[in-house]
Amino acid sequence: MLRKILIANRGEIAVRIIRACAEMDIRSVAIYADVDRYSLHVKKADEAYSLGADPLAGYLNVHRIVNLAIATGCDAIHPGYGFLSENPELARACARRGITFIGPSASVIQRMGDKTEARLAMQRAGVPVTPGSPGNLASVEEALATAEQIGYPVMLKATSGGGGRGIRRCNDAAELHHNFARVISEATKAFGRAEVFIERCVVNPRHIEVQVLADQHGNCVHLYERDCSIQRRNQKLIEIAPSPQIDEAERQYVGGLAVLAARAVGYTNAGTVEFLQDADGRFYFMEMNTRIQVEHTITESITGVDLVEEQIRIAAGLPLRFRQDQITRRGFAIQFRINAEDPKNNFLPSFGRISRYYASGGPGVRTDGVMYTGYQVPPYYDSMLAKLVVWALTWDDVVNRGTRALRDIGVFGIKTTIPFYLAIMSHPDFRRGRFDTGFLEAHQEELLGYSSKRRKDHIAAAIAAAIAAHAGL
Amino acid sequence: MLRKILIANRGEIAVRIIRACAEMDIRSVAIYADVDRYSLHVKKADEAYSLGADPLAGYLNVHRIVNLAIATGCDAIHPGYGFLSENPELARACARRGITFIGPSASVIQRMGDKTEARLAMQRAGVPVTPGSPGNLASVEEALATAEQIGYPVMLKATSGGGGRGIRRCNDAAELHHNFARVISEATKAFGRAEVFIERCVVNPRHIEVQVLADQHGNCVHLYERDCSIQRRNQKLIEIAPSPQIDEAERQYVGGLAVLAARAVGYTNAGTVEFLQDADGRFYFMEMNTRIQVEHTITESITGVDLVEEQIRIAAGLPLRFRQDQITRRGFAIQFRINAEDPKNNFLPSFGRISRYYASGGPGVRTDGVMYTGYQVPPYYDSMLAKLVVWALTWDDVVNRGTRALRDIGVFGIKTTIPFYLAIMSHPDFRRGRFDTGFLEAHQEELLGYSSKRRKDHIAAAIAAAIAAHAGL
Repeated sequence: MLRKILIANRGEIAVRIIRACAEMDIRSVAIYADVDRYSLHVKKADEAYSLGADPLAGYLNVHRIVNLAIATGCDAIHPGYGFLSENPELARACARRGITFIGPSASVIQRMGDKTEARLAMQRAGVPVTPGSPGNLASVEEALATAEQIGYPVMLKATSGGGGRGIRRCNDAAELHHNFARVISEATKAFGRAEVFIERCVVNPRHIEVQVLADQHGNCVHLYERDCSIQRRNQKLIEIAPSPQIDEAERQYVGGLAVLAARAVGYTNAGTVEFLQDADGRFYFMEMNTRIQVEHTITESITGVDLVEEQIRIAAGLPLRFRQDQITRRGFAIQFRINAEDPKNNFLPSFGRISRYYASGGPGVRTDGVMYTGYQVPPYYDSMLAKLVVWALTWDDVVNRGTRALRDIGVFGIKTTIPFYLAIMSHPDFRRGRFDTGFLEAHQEELLGYSSKRRKDHIAAAIAAAIAAHAGL
Repeated sequence: MLRKILIANRGEIAVRIIRACAEMDIRSVAIYADVDRYSLHVKKADEAYSLGADPLAGYLNVHRIVNLAIATGCDAIHPGYGFLSENPELARACARRGITFIGPSASVIQRMGDKTEARLAMQRAGVPVTPGSPGNLASVEEALATAEQIGYPVMLKATSGGGGRGIRRCNDAAELHHNFARVISEATKAFGRAEVFIERCVVNPRHIEVQVLADQHGNCVHLYERDCSIQRRNQKLIEIAPSPQIDEAERQYVGGLAVLAARAVGYTNAGTVEFLQDADGRFYFMEMNTRIQVEHTITESITGVDLVEEQIRIAAGLPLRFRQDQITRRGFAIQFRINAEDPKNNFLPSFGRISRYYASGGPGVRTDGVMYTGYQVPPYYDSMLAKLVVWALTWDDVVNRGTRALRDIGVFGIKTTIPFYLAIMSHPDFRRGRFDTGFLEAHQEELLGYSSKRRKDHIAAAIAAAIAAHAGL
């Protein structure tokens, strides 16, 4: 078993990994930019090392991180998500220096990171993909010709993109012409590569993704699906497991597809195969994320499996502890990403000091977060401060529990997405378990004009209290 | 369904009940002594009413509480545990005034509160009890004669006692003689009744208790057992579900006994049947608690059933939603009672201001508590500040998770029982799942001399950090 792990990340996922290490009696090493000096991951790790003043450079410096792991006696590095997690350079540097990288091999990361190569691999394996360009597009003319063949609307995508970035929908030839140079320019800036391709646009699909685990001994299982259709501008906000809108036959089918996909590329460790499901119920491979995901928590809630622990066990060379038929699931889970953003002000980031924080709690509530009273939210990073995860035996119960848990939390001093989620929880379509990736855009106005019922309740309560006091109760 | 519930309690159980109300769309009404003005139950309830300056009198005033419920338009009262929960007067006053009491009938509360009557009822129903006096003891001579018959050691118990109070072990006639007047005097002071009885003492038994739910339509089920053998002076500190030290046949047997016991007395609502298990595996009825218990959380963790919601549904007249064979269980759960006490100083209460508080979190961790940064712990009440509940698929995993979660919590400004629990978690007998009610006393010295490993870790980390900084890593 591994003895000491360097966590090449910050925020809630660093805390999550430190917790797994603590439960496995593995020492944890945190790294931090100076602005993160008082962050929870620094407080909780067994050891913590400063990366200096730059808020980002250190977290992205492969060479320095691997050197630090060696100097501090670590035998492994966990990359978390974001930062270097899907950069094959870190996996490669680890392999070269004799450090265990907790994730798949560099070649698999690279291959699945190239969206046209991943598409081709899936087609060869018999996993359905949307009709699209067979490879990267050499010119706007080739793009226009391909789009003519597969039919509009099309999605223009950066080959190196992913996680909802480097994607544009084009409804006609004019829009495709207009967007072509833009996406190439964006992709060059964001990913350092200019390649793009197109796919037929599945209009308002459901986003259904499947968690897989594969060990180094040829065993591969899925842990059911997550429904991540509640997105704003391709960014997931609320995730659900299992999907309340697919049936048992679809569940088995898409789970099988994910295992097929993982096996086809020789995948090892934890990964997620993302699918789109169209209105007719057909699934199409979208991409594979070769890392732990933000929303892994809801899979843990329904299966009871600790995915980060399994990642570490797999990286250490152990075989999986369960066969497919030994993975049970129970109830429903929802994850809310509590972001430091102002929903009433176009989701503008809202940084600053958390003057007071009250955690949620009680039955079926899990919090993975970095908030505490007095925490100064730095402006340099992703705005996610916590993941609130609720679980209950039935769909109706989990929606009610989610609503309650969102009201439980008290975050003062900054704005968060909590009121927006409360509006979603009370929407009749959501309560009925019916939503697709177009849900938020379609209902944006009613959701943002969320009722001030809670405030009214408080006023009514204050009046009632005053009356009772007067009556001498 | 009920519309508005007054919660006749404070602290974590009041918060717990408010949360259940919120999930069921039922309005909640809190009551509070002025010293509790800034307590979480007051913040979280839909309405809250002061009971005045006396820290205790208001919480114990049946008449005032029922009047307040009527005046504020409540249709039900939830008593929580402690305070008036097992006082038949509250249930009776509710019945008289047309308010739903969330618990069993006054007559059942009264009957099970009388330990000799409860014993007799169990004997008649065929539930095993320890040999003892057939009824209350009229004199010390009768006590001595009975003890001679059943054999020493014996337990001398107050008929109105319970929850570990009003109990003395007597190893011989001299001790019985000595204790007789004392227990009568204590019982008179504490419970207002002088009756006592004796039972054969089961030496270092396991404390195994079974959760039951019974509706008003004749349905009664159990939700498996809890092992509460980790006790200090008859007070539970750590509770476990299911017991790691009984087998499946014993589990079915003792669950069946609990249902038999509940049916025998016409029980309704949630209740707990407590048993002692001797070294030979025999179970003996000890007492029935006619209320929700502190440790109900661990049963919720393994079954997924929300017990407070079920209490409310049963009180509202709804039938149970599940048959016995539909209640599944998964994994193991442990509850730690985080008390404001100093284990190194004979568990002396440690009150004052919590200067900083960091909650635990992550997979399999639930917190029910009243702590927050700045909370002033009042000296007038039970010292329990929070219940930390952990769950995992296997016994080994839940012990490791409990250890991690206990280390996760940060409570500054007061002393707590956390270090003592960490010592228990690392004890080889506990880790092997082998312990009885004599465990804490037998291992007291080694547990209280708990190692300062964690501090040593921190020092080692600081040295390593200094070396790394010097090396310019």
